[in-house]
Amino acid sequence: MNQPLTQAMSGWADSLVNLVPVLSGSDETASMGQVRASYTAFQAQQKPPQGVRFEEVDMGGVPATLVLPEVQDSDLVLVYIHGGAYIVGEPAGYRGIGGNYAKLLGARVYIPDYRLAPEHPFPAAIDDGLRAYEWLLEQGIPARKIAFAGESAGGAMVVSVMVAAKQKGLPLPAAGVAISPWANLEHTGASMTNREGLDPLNTKPLLDLLARTFLAGALPNHPLASPVFADVTGLPPILVQIGENELMLSDAMRLASHLAENRVRVNLEVWPHMPHAWHFFQSFLPEAEQALRESARFISETVSPNQ
Amino acid sequence: MNQPLTQAMSGWADSLVNLVPVLSGSDETASMGQVRASYTAFQAQQKPPQGVRFEEVDMGGVPATLVLPEVQDSDLVLVYIHGGAYIVGEPAGYRGIGGNYAKLLGARVYIPDYRLAPEHPFPAAIDDGLRAYEWLLEQGIPARKIAFAGESAGGAMVVSVMVAAKQKGLPLPAAGVAISPWANLEHTGASMTNREGLDPLNTKPLLDLLARTFLAGALPNHPLASPVFADVTGLPPILVQIGENELMLSDAMRLASHLAENRVRVNLEVWPHMPHAWHFFQSFLPEAEQALRESARFISETVSPNQ
Repeated sequence: MNQPLTQAMSGWADSLVNLVPVLSGSDETASMGQVRASYTAFQAQQKPPQGVRFEEVDMGGVPATLVLPEVQDSDLVLVYIHGGAYIVGEPAGYRGIGGNYAKLLGARVYIPDYRLAPEHPFPAAIDDGLRAYEWLLEQGIPARKIAFAGESAGGAMVVSVMVAAKQKGLPLPAAGVAISPWANLEHTGASMTNREGLDPLNTKPLLDLLARTFLAGALPNHPLASPVFADVTGLPPILVQIGENELMLSDAMRLASHLAENRVRVNLEVWPHMPHAWHFFQSFLPEAEQALRESARFISETVSPNQ
Repeated sequence: MNQPLTQAMSGWADSLVNLVPVLSGSDETASMGQVRASYTAFQAQQKPPQGVRFEEVDMGGVPATLVLPEVQDSDLVLVYIHGGAYIVGEPAGYRGIGGNYAKLLGARVYIPDYRLAPEHPFPAAIDDGLRAYEWLLEQGIPARKIAFAGESAGGAMVVSVMVAAKQKGLPLPAAGVAISPWANLEHTGASMTNREGLDPLNTKPLLDLLARTFLAGALPNHPLASPVFADVTGLPPILVQIGENELMLSDAMRLASHLAENRVRVNLEVWPHMPHAWHFFQSFLPEAEQALRESARFISETVSPNQ
């Protein structure tokens, strides 16, 4: 990795330095609130682009940030589902990437502030994602004009919220972009070991702890927790973007295979040397800008291109 | 599949009706020449677009058809490596798809007429592909301006000719598009059985016979015969496009995984319900037109986009 990326990933990992002590109860001077604030502060260093503004909205009970581009020339609506292992992350840390998508798409972007574990374990996050989507439908926005995107836990939720919507009999959105998806909480992919040490943000012991915290007793192969086990038939086209240095590489490729075997239109992009969710670092990383641009194009071309 | 596609695939299979009798020697009234003529006559029904012309050229000993677009606004050069199980196929059958690429890219397309088995078994085809590429370099065309595309056996050769070029110490082309690649002559992918009957052109017994004919005693896991076993490190970005109904689905996904695990930039597109090499049927199949267009865009954007 180049030097600025190495530094950024290291800073990202540092922002989570108190997460394990807090989760394990070994440091009573730090709190989950402080960990989340530190994580968001790190992410918020990636500023939104010029030409977008933000509103706080309520999506039928789920708070959210709405990103509005000055030039809104598309009627599609993107739901950006943030990551953070279902434990950290909030819209305030995602104004950079949300703003970039709003500008690239010329469209509104909603960033739901879904409930987090350990206070609200599985399936609270999925429930909130589903509620936010249902609220968009209630506003009269046609499903065929809605796309999902998200990274890490949010990349898995791109699929699992669609699966939940299908189970509820709702019409499905038109496209999904799963960035570095945390697709399999069993962590059985080969890259969980053969990429160890290459992905500065993640280690398998850390991911195991985070998954246990989120699941709170649910099985890691629950189809709404790990979309590689879900009935995904009938889902719309999905783009999976994954970094080749990621612990999550193999399970992301398994997600792509699982979707394809079930007749979902799948595009998979594997980016050599990229670490987890490199898209954040658009300000200095060409691969981030390219990946964002390609995913925005996938959304634009897939969501009702002819109407 | 829709009705026109079903009919087309059936006609394609019919064009090969004498292949097995000829290869097995059970029909002495038919000849390999007749089989090849029938195959090419079927393919040639897909006409080239307006605005391209054709020249017969010699690529350093390998005959080829050169496709020249009226509007040539790109200095990239595409080598289109046709398929046909290394046994049938010739440039005359590929003027449709070659012409479409020339027009989409605004660039020259070379279609080498490499030697075929059983008269010229493995590795004659790879040798000729490599020779044609080397000849382009000898003409002063920079490797960074050259891309490969091909389908089926030609899709495998997109990778294996690059591997051969690497082994010879040549500079590598800038991009490859492997359409429905016949990537693994061991035929061990799950789709060799679970897609049986869905792919009108291919059956596993037929593919086994064709592979044996081509290999003529070489092992099917030879890295130049089956690129899933090749040392692919250092190869340029590769797009794999595969139909979800194909017997070759699993092995194509294995090729994508193999490339990715070896740090090659990979895009994989899985197209639901599509049969083998559906790209040919651009004249009536929207998915063919879309897949061709997306692959041409991948080439254009990957081949020296900034110079």
